[in-house]
Amino acid sequence: MSRVRVHNFSLSLDGFATGDGQSFEQPFGHAEDRLHQWFFRTRAFRSMHGEPGGETGVDDAVARAWEPEIGAEIMGRGKFGPQTGPWADHDWKGWWGDNPPFHTPVFVLTHHVRPALELEGGTTFHFLDADPAQALRQARAAAGGRDVRIGGGPTTVRAFLAADLIDHLHVVLTPIVLGRGVRLWDDLEGLEKRFAVESVTSPHGVTHVTFTRD
Amino acid sequence: MSRVRVHNFSLSLDGFATGDGQSFEQPFGHAEDRLHQWFFRTRAFRSMHGEPGGETGVDDAVARAWEPEIGAEIMGRGKFGPQTGPWADHDWKGWWGDNPPFHTPVFVLTHHVRPALELEGGTTFHFLDADPAQALRQARAAAGGRDVRIGGGPTTVRAFLAADLIDHLHVVLTPIVLGRGVRLWDDLEGLEKRFAVESVTSPHGVTHVTFTRD
Repeated sequence: MSRVRVHNFSLSLDGFATGDGQSFEQPFGHAEDRLHQWFFRTRAFRSMHGEPGGETGVDDAVARAWEPEIGAEIMGRGKFGPQTGPWADHDWKGWWGDNPPFHTPVFVLTHHVRPALELEGGTTFHFLDADPAQALRQARAAAGGRDVRIGGGPTTVRAFLAADLIDHLHVVLTPIVLGRGVRLWDDLEGLEKRFAVESVTSPHGVTHVTFTRD
Repeated sequence: MSRVRVHNFSLSLDGFATGDGQSFEQPFGHAEDRLHQWFFRTRAFRSMHGEPGGETGVDDAVARAWEPEIGAEIMGRGKFGPQTGPWADHDWKGWWGDNPPFHTPVFVLTHHVRPALELEGGTTFHFLDADPAQALRQARAAAGGRDVRIGGGPTTVRAFLAADLIDHLHVVLTPIVLGRGVRLWDDLEGLEKRFAVESVTSPHGVTHVTFTRD
C-alpha cells in the first residue's frame, strides 16, 4: 500500500514551521533560513539543487529519505508561492526555477485553480481545490503505486494529520524560539498515540523526531 | 557569582509545561504524568523522595544536576499547590509531605502571603509578593553565595527568562502533543541568542536541551 509521508519538516521549539510575513524575498518570513540551516549543509539538499558538496553525516542520511519511492507531492499554496487570492497572472513557476527538485507530479492546494504547469525534469504542478482526502486520491492515482509526500507548509501538514492520513512524519526540532508564525501542532492533542515515535539529536543540535506506523 | 538555574523542566512538542485543569489529584492537569515519565524512572528522582532503585543512565545523570550548589529555590504558587485566591486556611504544606526534597529556603511567589512554613530536612517555604528581580534578591540573600533554582511552573520560568535573569535553562522535550495547558515559550522570541545551546536525546526518546551562559 502506498504510504503518505512528511520529511525534513523543521520546527522551532515553540512549534512554528514558518515565520511571520512570507514574501518573495523571505519564503519563511522572519524565520529567514534559521529553521533550515541543518538542511542546507547536507549533501542531500545540495544535490537536490544541482550543487556539489555538502556534509554526509546523520542529518544528510535522514534528509535523503525525502526522495525514494515518492510518486507525487501535495503542497499548500504558500509552499508554491507567497501570493494570495486570485492569480494576477500565471508567470510564477514556484521558488525552484525551471527544473524543480520534485521530478514527479505536484498537487498545489488552492481555491484559485490555474492550468497545469509542466517544467523540466518531470515536475508538473497541478492546481487543485480539494480537501485532504480528495487531494490524496488524485495524488495516489498519479503516483503509480508509489508513496505520496505531503510537502508543507504547516497548515497543509496539520490538515492531513487531523484527517489521520499521514503514515510517516519526520519533524526536525531546531533549538530556536521563533515567537510568531504558523504552528504545526495546534488541535492535534494525543497525536503520538497513533504512531511509534523515535528521536535522535544530530551533532549540529537539531533533533529528528519520526512518527511512523505500518 | 551565584547563578540562576532551571532544571528538569519538561515540555511537550507543542511547548506546554503543564496541562489544563490542575487539581489536588492532578498537579499537572490533564497531562497527568506523561511529561515526567523520563524523570520518575531515574535514581535521582527516587532518591529525592527517599525511594530506592531507579535507572542510572543519561536521564539520571542529567536529572542529578538539579541539586548541587543550590542554596534556595523560587517557585510559582501553582507549583506549591492548586489553590487560587486568598488561602482558606494554612494547612496545605505543598505536594511533598513533611520532608520535601528541597532542603533549602523556598520562596513561593503569591499575591496572598502567609507565614513562613518550616518543614523537616531544612526546607522552609517563604511566601512572597514580589517581581522576579525582587524575589531573586531575597533568594540570593538566603542562598549564602550558592545558586538559586527557579523551580517552575511555566509562568514563573517565563517571567524570569523575560527579565533575562536565568543563566542555565535545562528543558526536556517529550515527544507528546499535549494540545492545551500553559506554554513556556510565549513572548520569548530570539531567546537562544543569549545562550550557548546543546541538545542530546536519551534512549527513552526525550531530548535534553540546555541553554547556558557564563
